[in-house]
Amino acid sequence: MSKLLIVGTVAFDAIETPFGKTDKILGGAATYIGLSASTFDINSGIVSIVGGDFPQEYLDMLQAKNIDTSGIEIVKDGKTFFWSGKYHNDMNSRDTLVTELNVLEHFNPKVPEHFKDSKIVMLGNLHPSVQMSVIKQMTEKPKLVVLDTMDFWMNVALPELLDVLKKVDVITINDEEARQLSGEYSLVNAAKKIHEMGPKYVVIKKGEHGALLFSEGKMFYAPALPLAEVFDPTGAGDTFAGGFSGYLAKTDNISFDNMKNAVIYGSNLASFCVEKFGTERMQNLSKEEIENRLEQFKHLTQFDIELK
Amino acid sequence: MSKLLIVGTVAFDAIETPFGKTDKILGGAATYIGLSASTFDINSGIVSIVGGDFPQEYLDMLQAKNIDTSGIEIVKDGKTFFWSGKYHNDMNSRDTLVTELNVLEHFNPKVPEHFKDSKIVMLGNLHPSVQMSVIKQMTEKPKLVVLDTMDFWMNVALPELLDVLKKVDVITINDEEARQLSGEYSLVNAAKKIHEMGPKYVVIKKGEHGALLFSEGKMFYAPALPLAEVFDPTGAGDTFAGGFSGYLAKTDNISFDNMKNAVIYGSNLASFCVEKFGTERMQNLSKEEIENRLEQFKHLTQFDIELK
Repeated sequence: MSKLLIVGTVAFDAIETPFGKTDKILGGAATYIGLSASTFDINSGIVSIVGGDFPQEYLDMLQAKNIDTSGIEIVKDGKTFFWSGKYHNDMNSRDTLVTELNVLEHFNPKVPEHFKDSKIVMLGNLHPSVQMSVIKQMTEKPKLVVLDTMDFWMNVALPELLDVLKKVDVITINDEEARQLSGEYSLVNAAKKIHEMGPKYVVIKKGEHGALLFSEGKMFYAPALPLAEVFDPTGAGDTFAGGFSGYLAKTDNISFDNMKNAVIYGSNLASFCVEKFGTERMQNLSKEEIENRLEQFKHLTQFDIELK
Repeated sequence: MSKLLIVGTVAFDAIETPFGKTDKILGGAATYIGLSASTFDINSGIVSIVGGDFPQEYLDMLQAKNIDTSGIEIVKDGKTFFWSGKYHNDMNSRDTLVTELNVLEHFNPKVPEHFKDSKIVMLGNLHPSVQMSVIKQMTEKPKLVVLDTMDFWMNVALPELLDVLKKVDVITINDEEARQLSGEYSLVNAAKKIHEMGPKYVVIKKGEHGALLFSEGKMFYAPALPLAEVFDPTGAGDTFAGGFSGYLAKTDNISFDNMKNAVIYGSNLASFCVEKFGTERMQNLSKEEIENRLEQFKHLTQFDIELK
């Protein structure tokens, strides 16, 4: 088992979907990543920043999941990052209604001493300079650095993004973003170009269409579980990343074959995340439910054709 | 091995993609279905109609693939169905430039005597009344009737479509069409509604995102092989249907597990179809190429997680 360091936002979200709307609830990339990774009973820690308005009970909840929160800086007189969004009827697109950076604006991440030797580092979606600062604080070279990012950083901080990509082993990115970053429409060609930017492994997230893992000419495809109802897609990508990095930390094996399993676990956990608003489903998820759904993933994808 | 009866258009296509354009070349749903199914060395026959302008060499080519063409009516003083389309840059959408129904307008399909006992019937995309007429000509109840259709028939001949669906075991349909037919956005719910219309098996084609097979609460997902280049998507859906029905005819086994394999073969063959313009790739495809690509499909989808 490897120690997992998670960097990302811990935030308030207010979400509106065709099924209803929420007040400010717990959100943030690192929150989803942490909750998802915690299903593997690993030693993980979050580096983030919140304001004095952030409830202690949320921190307690994370700690109860064996997530170290000593790297979450609390700015007593500051306000927690707040995002509000509204999903369209197809649930595949959304409008951002409010973004209040608040304490995130001057986030200077500090990795706790006891996490500077983490073997797996999961860099959630943040300014690439913040992601770089975390890599530089590691006293031992991590076995695997995974980076998640989004189109926003390609638009406003591309040089910094390209810099940090050189230090990264795995990038997780969605299909449109992969096309934007690479200038290639075909995802096969996009992955090739992104490999050349640094990451040996490229994971392309396609939402309801699953995820693709590329490395050195090898490809693996994990479908998303087709669901009767997607209640709230918020955090699905982060939950995927948490399942991916959490499984690799748990198994301490970064072979391509084991990464296939990690992608399946990511997809598996993401399928729960979308069943309820916010982090609700991820906070209450049993090992048995996860294993049962893994069985569904097997039935969904495994076939038996004899080759001559 | 079962006899396979194929009904559908045999046509001329003129295609424009970002990679180039063609003059009138061989096309039509039944052509693609037949070529794809013929890779299994089965006994198949096409029921269709062409004009006096249809070259004998095309019929010879189909016959050389062991496809019986005695059910292709030739209207000496008529013209062959002609379709022309132009693909957009993303290759996922296209504009129809020309549709000349010609002899298809008064198509009254005649199933040859020696195909009236076919165990597998593949009804390519055509007016649902034409599809129904073929079912009625069968002297023995087929083991499996597969129907492909499209949104056009939902718009102009919905009652006839609903009628023929009652007589059908499998429907193949794309995702947007499944949503239109069922009024459900979730494909899981769409498949449920479509089951209630008749077909025990629902195959939803998602283009570059693969295909889903649904039956009695069971689901199977076959990805499309991610390709560096999609040259011409024309006929991919029909090639999928030909691989699906051809494999079932070859193996003479319509269990859900074998249908999983059929979906994989459909996806496999479709991945070749798009590599060149029109039917060119399907006319020149070796068993070895198909088997090698099947190996790629295995690597792409198979994983090995031990469940506790």
